[in-house]
Amino acid sequence: MSGSSFGKLFKITTWGESHGRGLGVVVEGCPAGLSLKESDIQLELNRRRTGQSKVTTTRKEGDKVQIMSGVFNGKTTGTPISLLVENEDADSSKYELIKDLYRPGHADYTYDMKYGFRDYRGGGRSSARETVGRVAAGAIAKKLLAREKIKIIGFTRQVGKNIAQTIDFNEIENNIVRCPDAKMADKMVNAIMRARKKGDSLGGIVEVIAQGVPAGLGEPVFDRLDADLAKAVMSIPAVKGVEIGVGFQSATMTGSQCNDVFAMKNKKVITETNNAGGILGGISNGMDIVVKLVVKPTSSINKEQNTVTRQGKKTEIRVEGRHDPCVAPRAVPIAEAMVALTLIDHLYRNKFSQL
Amino acid sequence: MSGSSFGKLFKITTWGESHGRGLGVVVEGCPAGLSLKESDIQLELNRRRTGQSKVTTTRKEGDKVQIMSGVFNGKTTGTPISLLVENEDADSSKYELIKDLYRPGHADYTYDMKYGFRDYRGGGRSSARETVGRVAAGAIAKKLLAREKIKIIGFTRQVGKNIAQTIDFNEIENNIVRCPDAKMADKMVNAIMRARKKGDSLGGIVEVIAQGVPAGLGEPVFDRLDADLAKAVMSIPAVKGVEIGVGFQSATMTGSQCNDVFAMKNKKVITETNNAGGILGGISNGMDIVVKLVVKPTSSINKEQNTVTRQGKKTEIRVEGRHDPCVAPRAVPIAEAMVALTLIDHLYRNKFSQL
Amino acid sequence: MSGSSFGKLFKITTWGESHGRGLGVVVEGCPAGLSLKESDIQLELNRRRTGQSKVTTTRKEGDKVQIMSGVFNGKTTGTPISLLVENEDADSSKYELIKDLYRPGHADYTYDMKYGFRDYRGGGRSSARETVGRVAAGAIAKKLLAREKIKIIGFTRQVGKNIAQTIDFNEIENNIVRCPDAKMADKMVNAIMRARKKGDSLGGIVEVIAQGVPAGLGEPVFDRLDADLAKAVMSIPAVKGVEIGVGFQSATMTGSQCNDVFAMKNKKVITETNNAGGILGGISNGMDIVVKLVVKPTSSINKEQNTVTRQGKKTEIRVEGRHDPCVAPRAVPIAEAMVALTLIDHLYRNKFSQL
Amino acid sequence: MSGSSFGKLFKITTWGESHGRGLGVVVEGCPAGLSLKESDIQLELNRRRTGQSKVTTTRKEGDKVQIMSGVFNGKTTGTPISLLVENEDADSSKYELIKDLYRPGHADYTYDMKYGFRDYRGGGRSSARETVGRVAAGAIAKKLLAREKIKIIGFTRQVGKNIAQTIDFNEIENNIVRCPDAKMADKMVNAIMRARKKGDSLGGIVEVIAQGVPAGLGEPVFDRLDADLAKAVMSIPAVKGVEIGVGFQSATMTGSQCNDVFAMKNKKVITETNNAGGILGGISNGMDIVVKLVVKPTSSINKEQNTVTRQGKKTEIRVEGRHDPCVAPRAVPIAEAMVALTLIDHLYRNKFSQL
Repeated sequence: MSGSSFGKLFKITTWGESHGRGLGVVVEGCPAGLSLKESDIQLELNRRRTGQSKVTTTRKEGDKVQIMSGVFNGKTTGTPISLLVENEDADSSKYELIKDLYRPGHADYTYDMKYGFRDYRGGGRSSARETVGRVAAGAIAKKLLAREKIKIIGFTRQVGKNIAQTIDFNEIENNIVRCPDAKMADKMVNAIMRARKKGDSLGGIVEVIAQGVPAGLGEPVFDRLDADLAKAVMSIPAVKGVEIGVGFQSATMTGSQCNDVFAMKNKKVITETNNAGGILGGISNGMDIVVKLVVKPTSSINKEQNTVTRQGKKTEIRVEGRHDPCVAPRAVPIAEAMVALTLIDHLYRNKFSQL
Repeated sequence: MSGSSFGKLFKITTWGESHGRGLGVVVEGCPAGLSLKESDIQLELNRRRTGQSKVTTTRKEGDKVQIMSGVFNGKTTGTPISLLVENEDADSSKYELIKDLYRPGHADYTYDMKYGFRDYRGGGRSSARETVGRVAAGAIAKKLLAREKIKIIGFTRQVGKNIAQTIDFNEIENNIVRCPDAKMADKMVNAIMRARKKGDSLGGIVEVIAQGVPAGLGEPVFDRLDADLAKAVMSIPAVKGVEIGVGFQSATMTGSQCNDVFAMKNKKVITETNNAGGILGGISNGMDIVVKLVVKPTSSINKEQNTVTRQGKKTEIRVEGRHDPCVAPRAVPIAEAMVALTLIDHLYRNKFSQL
Repeated sequence: MSGSSFGKLFKITTWGESHGRGLGVVVEGCPAGLSLKESDIQLELNRRRTGQSKVTTTRKEGDKVQIMSGVFNGKTTGTPISLLVENEDADSSKYELIKDLYRPGHADYTYDMKYGFRDYRGGGRSSARETVGRVAAGAIAKKLLAREKIKIIGFTRQVGKNIAQTIDFNEIENNIVRCPDAKMADKMVNAIMRARKKGDSLGGIVEVIAQGVPAGLGEPVFDRLDADLAKAVMSIPAVKGVEIGVGFQSATMTGSQCNDVFAMKNKKVITETNNAGGILGGISNGMDIVVKLVVKPTSSINKEQNTVTRQGKKTEIRVEGRHDPCVAPRAVPIAEAMVALTLIDHLYRNKFSQL
Repeated sequence: MSGSSFGKLFKITTWGESHGRGLGVVVEGCPAGLSLKESDIQLELNRRRTGQSKVTTTRKEGDKVQIMSGVFNGKTTGTPISLLVENEDADSSKYELIKDLYRPGHADYTYDMKYGFRDYRGGGRSSARETVGRVAAGAIAKKLLAREKIKIIGFTRQVGKNIAQTIDFNEIENNIVRCPDAKMADKMVNAIMRARKKGDSLGGIVEVIAQGVPAGLGEPVFDRLDADLAKAVMSIPAVKGVEIGVGFQSATMTGSQCNDVFAMKNKKVITETNNAGGILGGISNGMDIVVKLVVKPTSSINKEQNTVTRQGKKTEIRVEGRHDPCVAPRAVPIAEAMVALTLIDHLYRNKFSQL
């Protein structure tokens, strides 16, 4: 009920604050018999880690994961897998300055209203650092999906006005913005560096594609695959919108343009286009699942902004410190994790559809 | 687990098929002591009903609701409220023609893949007729919200390329497309009639605003208010995207443009703009909640389209029958219901935040 | 959250009051493809029905079930199955007398304290009539279990001081108390008739045995099979205790007496005794599951008893009307239903234990 | 779904194995603002700890708890509280001997059947050591209950044939068996020491009383307070039965004996007796809640017993090592924790009963 759990059959519960002792996740519903090593998880955590490049924050966190339970002799036992990442570089000193101020765009005010007070060090529980647990759990989900030949690919589709025009999956991890279009990647990097120099930040769009998803995933009528994906990615800090397939573009299409007609290919039913983003009636149709999410420009900017204090006095604030000027590149592995967690949960749920 | 339930503390479970005996919903978590009459619910059902105007389907359903349990002497008892709407005008004969075909854009194929067969009469469980239960339950949610001075207002923001430019709430129910801009309403009606004449359909955008929502609703980190709203509206048939506040527009904004700065008004903390759509860090901040959703053009069109049969043969299909050429106007009360259900659930969940 | 649901993968939600329009249950998680007719369910409802014999209440309810959704062409579709039983013989007049009194042993006072008022007609939601929904849903669970060769057998083990000494399953439905020991059955009937004549009532013990349950059902550490069975049967009205296997007798046993030693039989691991009642560490071990539950003597007795009014005045009460003088015989099909519902849920949950 | 969570509004999820890196629990739903220190929790853990006296196992575990999240400046923040206890004295060597054998009365065989293999070191997840997490979380529940003047008192009612005859709460923690009857305590200790000398073990009965519980807790019809208490305590390792109030004794009572008549006392409605154990119709009535549970004799005994190997060969086993010859005394704080967790959850759930 606290809202820190995601999934029904494959379920994760995250805990931890930005500047507390550590962060963790309990993974329930992973079947027994999966080979699992700390390095499997570390790989994904490294993709989300701070300090990777000049476009990310300089806070240095090793994010070293420990498997605390649920694995014996290198295999999952079927019981809860507890993963722990201890915090290292938690410099809380500068947060003393803002403990009585509300940073625009942040959750300071809303946490105060909800709980009566807040752990103001680095945003406490509202920090994007919480996503460590999601990415760690997502690594396990990806391993399980890989056994079913399902692959999750995320990338930065847009930063400010720069939109990837070509999609080369092999290019994604070649550049520091995770853009599948090498030329546009350079422009994105430049745009981000210019924004940082001005003390400002940029928004962007992340896209996640899931290949190999069988038809039949998703439950009518509320737990549709698209509804659960929407929740999954909207729960990522800074996300303000989500689309499946053509998304908002469908407002200006006609039915005859938007409908994907069915055809046969290699004795399999396919659709000739994929405007639906792989989902019909809330259930996967065997085509690629296509999800897009928009991340707002980072709220922490090095510019003077009006605000108020906890006591209701007008004041000004300038958020110094180490922040990503655009969160899209680091949101990619997080979005992948959320899509992976949603898919594995629905894959298991679908096992009961037929006798 | 079947996916037919929504909400945690205020929970609904819907059942029923388009052409079965009826449709219903069980509402759990409504406190004892609320005055409730069938007419309270009927009012909302009438707004969603078919055959209201020339822009909707001509199927005639009375949608007469019966309260089967949970109310005694005009007041809710605190136990489950069972609502029943019997089906009347279920002409299943023409569906015999499509029982072995997959209608493009519909769930025929995905239900077959999931369940091995399907109730093909009117789409069975995948029919938008299922939303009767949601709207009925939403009427109760709205009554509970009204006690807390929370008001839900939905309208059609866009049909095809026609976008409402002015927002006059009083205008909404004055026109058959539920557009808050009277001039644009006429254009929308014309666009829809033109599309229908061509046997085609149009997409659109619905907007829902919640006024009077107190700060503090939404649970970190997965059950954020925006995440749950996203799921709620994405679960409505035909919805392909959702935005909170400025939504996708934030991709091209800078932090200094997008951040809503805090200020004081009548001794209350407010934000001077509302780009965030009333939600910060997944928690309501006391400003209006603003949700937008896109509905794709109706999949049932009276035009020849390629498709395949259940047996994998190529064929063509033309969906005759009684369909809304644009679902936006009738999606308005449904979207309102889903927003109301989400808010009442989070209002109750938030009662536990502080000792 | 309202407490009217049971099960996680195979889930039921019941609704309805003793003297309302009807009673019902929504069954979620039944896979597609099961043959299901109303007569399948009616059979079980008839076993629980009132007015079966001289040892039961004389209220006459047909308890005719209607399948409202989830079945198409005689097969389950995988979507929610809604079952409805309309009330017929609801004579509420005599309840006017007790609407301001608290009947000893009943839920009148506790409902008033919980909800502020109560539907006093026949106990409203607290009436054992609510179990109609459980038994109807249990009939579906039994059909699914039968496919897996799992059989549920319930019987009356004890009424007052009369304890069945021999267990002949074929005898159970031959007598009106559902006792597997024909001789003892007569004594039970006599004891009940004597109690009724005195205006009093008797307690008893019901036993349920599940045969053919495979090893592996039950989830560590809270959702153990025994824990969920305990909850299942304790939720039946009038139940005050539950035992698995030797139960309370184990308090006076030593480990060497109580442990069931393992042995091989037909190349299968078995235990030579079954003190554990088929469950070790919360997980089924392949032996018969053995559950016992005690039902208190019916609270409605035709004897003068002290009580108080809603206004806190001392008074006396004598509950006239139509009541079972011992609920054990009719509790048998209810207990069977609850055990069946628990087992099918765990059978499905166990499908995820191993890759 | 993995079964490692308990509670709905106040929810705990435990993880960890007997001989793994540690044990832990994530507590969700604790409101913000509760003062909480590690020493609050340590106190309860010390009551459950091994090596307390001559009647317990000699394994020495410090069970030192660390609060990893959810507390800031000494107060709970409303976000998940993660508690960690690292394992210290985990001597796994002697378990090599039994890794291919099934210990009678233990979960070795059932885990193997469920998961395909098992962590055989100290029983892995099936070890009673898992209850560390429950007791730690229970300490928080008790603090919350204390604010509402609710007090939980547990004790050993029976060991073998020795039954406490007098109940002096002050005596409970004065003796090593936690018996409220000093004289009987000596007899219980002697009985346990005799059993240990013979390499055997004893069963017993634990009783938990909750004082100060307001009327109204418990939800019809499945999540009754008694049903949830039954599940709570039945989920404790070794428990084979549970009773509320007079429990199984009610089988031989008449209605006129068993009914508790209502009366007024200090302007409050009370019952003159408490056969019901404080629960009517599944809802608390304001009287003491009385729960009894039976623990079977410890399965690990130092006597030769027949068994089989994983490969299905007949063999013999004698379980050496450090075991409690009777688990009742250490089950007392565990049972208290489970009752406390159930009550706090229902206390919160009941906040929604009335408008």
